[in-house]
Amino acid sequence: MKDNPEDFTIEKQRNNQTEVIDKIVSLSKRRGFVFQSSEIYGGLNGCWDYGPLGVELLKNIKEEWWRFMTYRENVEGLDASILMHPRVWEASGHVENFTDPMIDCKQCKSRYRLDTLSDLIAEKKKRKIIEVFIDNISKTNLLFNISAGDIRNLSEQEINDTFNNILENNELSLLLLKELNCPQCGNKGTFTEARKFNLMFKTFVGPVEDNGSVVYLRPETAQGIFVNFLNVQNSSRQKIPFGIAQIGKAFRNEINTKNFLFRTREFEQMEMQFFVNPTDDKKWYDYWKQERLDWFFSLGMTKDKLRYHDHPKEKLAHYAKEATDIEYLFPFGWGEIEGIHNRTNFDLSRHEEFSGKSLKYFDEESKEKYTPFIIETSAGASRSFMAFLTDAYYEEEVNGELRSVLRLHPKIAPTKAAIFPLVNKDGMPEIAKKIETDLRKKLKVFYDDKGAVGRRYRRQDEVGTPFCITIDTETLNDQTVTIRERDKMTQVRVSEDKILQYLLEKID
Amino acid sequence: MKDNPEDFTIEKQRNNQTEVIDKIVSLSKRRGFVFQSSEIYGGLNGCWDYGPLGVELLKNIKEEWWRFMTYRENVEGLDASILMHPRVWEASGHVENFTDPMIDCKQCKSRYRLDTLSDLIAEKKKRKIIEVFIDNISKTNLLFNISAGDIRNLSEQEINDTFNNILENNELSLLLLKELNCPQCGNKGTFTEARKFNLMFKTFVGPVEDNGSVVYLRPETAQGIFVNFLNVQNSSRQKIPFGIAQIGKAFRNEINTKNFLFRTREFEQMEMQFFVNPTDDKKWYDYWKQERLDWFFSLGMTKDKLRYHDHPKEKLAHYAKEATDIEYLFPFGWGEIEGIHNRTNFDLSRHEEFSGKSLKYFDEESKEKYTPFIIETSAGASRSFMAFLTDAYYEEEVNGELRSVLRLHPKIAPTKAAIFPLVNKDGMPEIAKKIETDLRKKLKVFYDDKGAVGRRYRRQDEVGTPFCITIDTETLNDQTVTIRERDKMTQVRVSEDKILQYLLEKID
Repeated sequence: MKDNPEDFTIEKQRNNQTEVIDKIVSLSKRRGFVFQSSEIYGGLNGCWDYGPLGVELLKNIKEEWWRFMTYRENVEGLDASILMHPRVWEASGHVENFTDPMIDCKQCKSRYRLDTLSDLIAEKKKRKIIEVFIDNISKTNLLFNISAGDIRNLSEQEINDTFNNILENNELSLLLLKELNCPQCGNKGTFTEARKFNLMFKTFVGPVEDNGSVVYLRPETAQGIFVNFLNVQNSSRQKIPFGIAQIGKAFRNEINTKNFLFRTREFEQMEMQFFVNPTDDKKWYDYWKQERLDWFFSLGMTKDKLRYHDHPKEKLAHYAKEATDIEYLFPFGWGEIEGIHNRTNFDLSRHEEFSGKSLKYFDEESKEKYTPFIIETSAGASRSFMAFLTDAYYEEEVNGELRSVLRLHPKIAPTKAAIFPLVNKDGMPEIAKKIETDLRKKLKVFYDDKGAVGRRYRRQDEVGTPFCITIDTETLNDQTVTIRERDKMTQVRVSEDKILQYLLEKID
Repeated sequence: MKDNPEDFTIEKQRNNQTEVIDKIVSLSKRRGFVFQSSEIYGGLNGCWDYGPLGVELLKNIKEEWWRFMTYRENVEGLDASILMHPRVWEASGHVENFTDPMIDCKQCKSRYRLDTLSDLIAEKKKRKIIEVFIDNISKTNLLFNISAGDIRNLSEQEINDTFNNILENNELSLLLLKELNCPQCGNKGTFTEARKFNLMFKTFVGPVEDNGSVVYLRPETAQGIFVNFLNVQNSSRQKIPFGIAQIGKAFRNEINTKNFLFRTREFEQMEMQFFVNPTDDKKWYDYWKQERLDWFFSLGMTKDKLRYHDHPKEKLAHYAKEATDIEYLFPFGWGEIEGIHNRTNFDLSRHEEFSGKSLKYFDEESKEKYTPFIIETSAGASRSFMAFLTDAYYEEEVNGELRSVLRLHPKIAPTKAAIFPLVNKDGMPEIAKKIETDLRKKLKVFYDDKGAVGRRYRRQDEVGTPFCITIDTETLNDQTVTIRERDKMTQVRVSEDKILQYLLEKID
């Protein structure tokens, strides 16, 4: 329905982008999309609750993903448990490597992830700090062949690169941190040494809290798929190439949560791991890269707000041969909402090694035995939710009044239709109630008989309800109702007994 | 479809019930309903993974519940986070009271929940042990007016009651434990003192692992609803009476997991909390008690395998005014699959007290301000899954051969239809593939062109696929297919272009 936004003659320019996120957070709370978790207790940082409309939007996104990904001959579903055997996370490398180096300011107790310090410092006059760094480098005779004088002639990009190089040298940055002012309190030399901090939440199974009983909340859903590779393959009789898809929660003990639903401690993923013959990896990587982008477009996401961000070879994760992010242009900038990765045979090989169980696949046609490569599509359900919500948010002037509207694709809109008796008498409520009852069997609908119809429209526009059905005096005469469409605000008259059919066709 | 089981002339008596559970566990693994979590690492006790067919069955059960419960004018949905503010669990009483008294045998390290010891002991000649208990009581002059001699004349029920009374007296049972043989190793007097063991999984938010950073994995979804009562009410403009429904995972650090999916450490709940005026509590309690039982029946569950188990007044939880369980007759006996409770105003009052925020409701019509009572319907999604699966499992003799069949209601069956080209040539695969592609847009279907049709039928019967569509030589002439129904095994011919419509009507 949003394919041709130029059709909307009254469409206004979007607001200042920094305001948009505040408006969406406010709308989310006011109308019941998203609440802060445990709000009456002051909230729990990095956790959010989905309210009545939010849960429908989220459910619809997940259901569309599920249908798109698993209603295929070559993809099977799975729902693995959140708690898994701890050896899984040794095999995956998470116990050893899923860590952030982290420092505290001893003075003000602020805590920083070393790799995010560059962002924090940027706000505190990065150029000046770089000079201190560079001076320090020359003092300590470390290997940076750039003088403090040269630094002033560098472009912003070059400064960032230099700075990142410095930060990536861990020993060096630890040394230099002593010369750095805390971005929070301004004190110098107050940082602790960096410590490795594992981002997995751990807990204990059974009554004894010791190392032998530690289990982790999964930090990603992918491993549940890898360890079930043969269980799924055997029970479904699938042949390679085939995929396993899963939707589920994952948890990361993030130090800095930020940007509403974007970086949270509890979140939901929609992941699919596609098992291929190593010789076909490029073909399937390209296939899924395209499929996944198309999926977002098929649900109405604005074309120029989505892009690929291909990872350069030198920045790839150790297990990856090729990787791209699908990024959405959030009000705070481009942010990853999905990753597509060629994970090679890393995962299955590691689980073979750690479990001692063969995870090889025997190809009956070619008589080959091999460890499949995996092409992964890993989308954030929570991030997709935020992207769809943000993307749908518009403000327009209609007849001199401001209208906020969520142009959500009807398939994912929380409420499919609202039903309004024009006045609360003359038999209109009875007809309206009957229509509501009939529609409710198939669709999520909302009944509203309060206030002027214009106001009722606005309340539904604001939450993205694509259709409003009004029962008026004409209905009493000819058994037709007015159906008003959210985006173009056009109205058609539809016979009472054809409403469900009309809506179902429009939604599809 | 199962309303008239007497219609099935070939229906056989069910197997020995203890065998049934083994067969279902085996079927679950073999055909992809349920796998052991992290199986290649030896499994993680009390956690299970849902395979390709299991995830569809579970999704369908949850979706049916969601539609039944929230496609109403007076029930809103919610999806609260699993991690909540720790004060929530102080207010709810879980930190203090959600504990099991637990003892260890110092000799063999076996661990027992004190309240399950009676079960364990029963297997070890309960009568003899009771005597020891009673002898001991008289020795220690404690208040039991029953002699060791009397005990031999008591019925099994009376013994159980006496024994439970003894166990409920905590001090007494601790004393007596010294006289008791360990049911595992047989040694006497080897038990440790009982310790309170909290069943909540705890973890730490942020990098510091101390008391100030403890959070819990929720042991129930209900509290997420209670703390959001006003957020939901305000954003949805609901008036009392209304409900809030939620599906989500919960975690309990059970000492003894057992009976497949029945008692697990990670499980899923389907809960609805209905907020009412205290004067209406009985009316709504009765209403929901009936609605919930009807829901299980509406999805085909066998009438005489479901019952209410009303809690006697003296056994009610401290917050409850009235409570009943819906129990299903599992192969191991009657087990709770849902609880319906009148929780009074306990929950909201406690959260008011602990948060300092008013959670009162102002009734605009009566001008009353009050703390609502809550009628709770709390169903286990995992337990319902197990009940539906068990209930559907039949073995029958058909033409001298054994057939296993899952008589799942079509609405919850994982695969709705299977498509078979009779032979893999003569244009049949092409027609079959076209039908598959068309159906897949709306339904989960399965394509099978391997082996004899009879064998293909059996494979689908075993996993509960309600319809099998065969493309045969007649199809080539008149564009009709055979649709064979799972339970009665009747066949009808349906025109190719009417298949989807036929299936959708039958499923509804």
